[in-house]
Amino acid sequence: MATTTTTDPQTLATRLRVDSVRLCDAAGSGHATSSMSAADLAAVLLTNHMRCDFTDADNPHNDHLIFSKGHASPLVYAMHRAVGAIDDDELLTYRQTGSRLQGHPVPLLPFVDVATGSLGQGLPVGVGLALAGRELDRLDYRVWVICGDSEMAEGSMWEAFEHAGHEGLANLTAIIDVNRLGQTGETRHGWDLEAYATRARAFGWHAITIDGHDVAAIDAAYHEAVATTEQPTVIVARTMKGRGVAAVEDQLNAHGKPVADAEDSIAELGDPGPIEVKVASPSNGKGRHRFQPVGDADPPRYELDGDPVATRKAYGEALTALGARRGDVVALDGEVSNSTHSEEFAAAHPERYFEMYIAEQQMIAAAVGMQVRGWTAYVSTFAAFLARAYDFVRMAAVSRADLRLCGSHAGVSIGEDGPSQMGLEDLASLRAVHGSTVLYPCDPNQAARLVEAMADLEGISYIRTTRGKLPTLYGPDEKFPVGGAKVVRSSPRDRVAIVGAGVTVHEALTAADSLEQEGVHARVIDLYSVKPVDVHTLVAAVRECGGRLITVEDHWPEGGLGEAVLSALAGAGVTQARVTKLGVQGMPGSGPPAELLHEAGIDAQAIVAAARELAQD
Amino acid sequence: MATTTTTDPQTLATRLRVDSVRLCDAAGSGHATSSMSAADLAAVLLTNHMRCDFTDADNPHNDHLIFSKGHASPLVYAMHRAVGAIDDDELLTYRQTGSRLQGHPVPLLPFVDVATGSLGQGLPVGVGLALAGRELDRLDYRVWVICGDSEMAEGSMWEAFEHAGHEGLANLTAIIDVNRLGQTGETRHGWDLEAYATRARAFGWHAITIDGHDVAAIDAAYHEAVATTEQPTVIVARTMKGRGVAAVEDQLNAHGKPVADAEDSIAELGDPGPIEVKVASPSNGKGRHRFQPVGDADPPRYELDGDPVATRKAYGEALTALGARRGDVVALDGEVSNSTHSEEFAAAHPERYFEMYIAEQQMIAAAVGMQVRGWTAYVSTFAAFLARAYDFVRMAAVSRADLRLCGSHAGVSIGEDGPSQMGLEDLASLRAVHGSTVLYPCDPNQAARLVEAMADLEGISYIRTTRGKLPTLYGPDEKFPVGGAKVVRSSPRDRVAIVGAGVTVHEALTAADSLEQEGVHARVIDLYSVKPVDVHTLVAAVRECGGRLITVEDHWPEGGLGEAVLSALAGAGVTQARVTKLGVQGMPGSGPPAELLHEAGIDAQAIVAAARELAQD
Repeated sequence: MATTTTTDPQTLATRLRVDSVRLCDAAGSGHATSSMSAADLAAVLLTNHMRCDFTDADNPHNDHLIFSKGHASPLVYAMHRAVGAIDDDELLTYRQTGSRLQGHPVPLLPFVDVATGSLGQGLPVGVGLALAGRELDRLDYRVWVICGDSEMAEGSMWEAFEHAGHEGLANLTAIIDVNRLGQTGETRHGWDLEAYATRARAFGWHAITIDGHDVAAIDAAYHEAVATTEQPTVIVARTMKGRGVAAVEDQLNAHGKPVADAEDSIAELGDPGPIEVKVASPSNGKGRHRFQPVGDADPPRYELDGDPVATRKAYGEALTALGARRGDVVALDGEVSNSTHSEEFAAAHPERYFEMYIAEQQMIAAAVGMQVRGWTAYVSTFAAFLARAYDFVRMAAVSRADLRLCGSHAGVSIGEDGPSQMGLEDLASLRAVHGSTVLYPCDPNQAARLVEAMADLEGISYIRTTRGKLPTLYGPDEKFPVGGAKVVRSSPRDRVAIVGAGVTVHEALTAADSLEQEGVHARVIDLYSVKPVDVHTLVAAVRECGGRLITVEDHWPEGGLGEAVLSALAGAGVTQARVTKLGVQGMPGSGPPAELLHEAGIDAQAIVAAARELAQD
Repeated sequence: MATTTTTDPQTLATRLRVDSVRLCDAAGSGHATSSMSAADLAAVLLTNHMRCDFTDADNPHNDHLIFSKGHASPLVYAMHRAVGAIDDDELLTYRQTGSRLQGHPVPLLPFVDVATGSLGQGLPVGVGLALAGRELDRLDYRVWVICGDSEMAEGSMWEAFEHAGHEGLANLTAIIDVNRLGQTGETRHGWDLEAYATRARAFGWHAITIDGHDVAAIDAAYHEAVATTEQPTVIVARTMKGRGVAAVEDQLNAHGKPVADAEDSIAELGDPGPIEVKVASPSNGKGRHRFQPVGDADPPRYELDGDPVATRKAYGEALTALGARRGDVVALDGEVSNSTHSEEFAAAHPERYFEMYIAEQQMIAAAVGMQVRGWTAYVSTFAAFLARAYDFVRMAAVSRADLRLCGSHAGVSIGEDGPSQMGLEDLASLRAVHGSTVLYPCDPNQAARLVEAMADLEGISYIRTTRGKLPTLYGPDEKFPVGGAKVVRSSPRDRVAIVGAGVTVHEALTAADSLEQEGVHARVIDLYSVKPVDVHTLVAAVRECGGRLITVEDHWPEGGLGEAVLSALAGAGVTQARVTKLGVQGMPGSGPPAELLHEAGIDAQAIVAAARELAQD
């Protein structure tokens, strides 16, 4: 069928429904009915309101559209087809191996900014994009987010409502597709549009309730949203799942599957055939904004004979200097900037610092939104509290996002505050993020250099900093390549190698001293790059230290430094190695750091004992 | 000083402040000022409203008090002292090694139900306790939760407001200590009490705003809360951090530390000396409610020659039968019960099933609250979406909670839905929870038996189920001890051992068949218990299979089954082992399960290739 061009939202909406049915039918799976409910909302957006050059995804003035209800991917792809971003052949590769048109959207497609499919994330990311538009890019693009009604139960949505409402992000419009039906039954609020509107208004939003199948009402609501200059707007739209096909319309059992009889359904919808729609061009306002260098751009240097410095302090100082050198660097923190030391960046670069308050999910999502626009985002909080946003970090990897995370106060070495603040699982959880980099410095120069290196890393990178001050082991000009390790102590007579990172490097050095008294020479390896890991240094240590290796980490025994070492050795085909793994034993309590390190079995004394045992054979 | 008994809240409040100052002074750290702001709110609660037998923590009729703002632990312990639950000597062990009085509360103390200190968790747990009181215990105890104003930014708080408001949990009272100041600056809403009240009302709560230092106003508000029978009540109280000591009162720089001059401060407060308060006894209503067996209590049995059955289906059937046998078993699900199959439990035991909608944090917290009251809670959703509640699972371990988690649809083997739904990090993140058990069945009988075993496990246990149907490998009478493994194929001529779990066990068996064609005999081990792991079976395999081992898992290469095996072998002092670790390579897309298993490099073909390479030497 020949493609016709239309400006009529109703005609476009029909074709979007037809394509949604076609895609799911071709794939044999997919959320056809959840796409059909939002088709009118999408059609009016494309024909009358969105301003985007679909021939140039890099146009900084383009509006952004995020499908927070990512399962409505058939509608996303039907829209791509309608604007000419993909052709009909590709459209029908939906959900096939190797296709860009996956079950849930991923940014392999030029006009998909982020992956969605874990509900409750699209709106928080939209808040980040809207913040970027107003505060960083300083351009007048608009951010549109199509949300499901089921995902309104996610707390992260309310972190987004709170942040956007308080910030008055007028460039953000949320559209809630209230089709009443979730996966297993009716949603908590069904078609009670006011339930959503009242909540949104309480959080400072302008709320409009409409019939989501009345194109005139939708058009008026979008105009009202654009005309609202002091608040973000939420449009709460009453819709029907499966709209347009009687067999599935408003039917519970029709969730998440193709429509039974595609051909009849398409006929029932009244297929107008292939449709192309001309979308308004973005305003050609001023060019992209960048910040000018401010303050002292010299990387911090810590002298070898200087006072001890906490790696978290080095994080703040290195990030601040980096921010002076690079106008693309921004920082976010979860109301602990005086603990993580991002407060120093905030003082030097207030325009590029974002206080996210105690809302870690929104914090990560905001950073994801900002990196969509090319900003280099560093996000910091206690390592323990990054666990709060683990699903957001997981999804950021699916989004191919470049994100820099800093978790401070990691380990039992924080002392008196106790286990709720320790984050003893961070190395394991962050290693298990696809393509991640995991760094764990033991001295201020190392921390500073690694913070600088993170700026140019792809994917999710994580740096673990510690609360207590640590002596300076390395000179200010030392290099710390990602994927490397440092042999901080060795001799030709080494009979055991001790592999640590962060605080345990210092425990290992103390242990090596006392072992030497006993005539046992120990090599000490600083494994500051936990992922990727320096296989060569580890293999050499096994070869040169009689196959005896001790790993010691201020972390649970599972999934951290010790298992990273074991995997590296296994991957290198090393046999003949005797590895003793030391990690935190038992649930810690409160107490002085030294006592907690001892109780956990990861202090110098524990290392010495392990080395003695290994050295016996 | 002699202890005097008082019924005067003002006198008690003063002593609670004095003790808060004393504790932090003795410890040299701690949140004195955040305790002082809430002292009047706490004192009125103890003197006039809480009904609790502080000599009998097991009295089912006791009210419950949760400090969602766990950093105010000095106040928690001062209250314990005032009710006689601890003595003055123990009080002064605050934050010392081995003390029950940790930096943040943990349930080592009889009247601390759960650990707090990760903000935004106490109220969601309170919702779970209130649900338990009304729906399960059917007793009229009341749940009081003292919240901080900073934590109102956490989305999890609004999951709690939404759930409690919609459920009309009148037995729940939240008290927000609006002391205006966070850690780094003023909170988003400062002393704007209406900002909180308006939001709470929008979520269906009865909200009262008061001066949190006016004992009469506090008393009236508590009476009003108790008299409110259709809604939960939130009391939004304007307070001052450091109240009563001019040097720190309402001062930003006084956060999270002792008061500078303790002696003068105590004098300024006007120390009444040691105080004891008589707290009202709980009502002696009817005894504790338990459910009667309903439905078919016979454990499901799957015949060896039967049709394939998905392990998620076996989860639902086993849990349903278990629920018929045991009245203490309850189930919660995040609006995917028709995917996880907890819907079968819901149908058989509707009074013990809780639909938590798409709010995973509140779901886990509710289960934690229910297990406080002795209920055996099973919580299910997609494995991917458990990541949303990772911080809650982490804290549940600090709470010494017994919790059973089921993550369904784990792995690339789900196919077309794509990576956002796969949960390829769950084994790593759940292994890295202190004291956790991680189970991963490969057949329906095994899944059913493990579900039954979880009922009596302590701590956090996790079962990973898969979407697709799997053939039955084991008979219905087979036993599967936690910590065990099954050798499903072996011969005296084995030259390589293949260790898998779940879907990869079946891939391993296929691989073993084709390897046998090539004259390479392979042992196949089903490592259904990923933590704890069966060291003996693994060590024997290394010994008897020429030291050649292949691990294969439908999970990222980090922190999962493969590293569990490597750790076990290292712990057993095994050398001479050549281990090839197969896990998901690259970011998966959508596609048929078999194609995704192949692309990930974890199918039979990949195993065969790895075995050939190993067998060469």
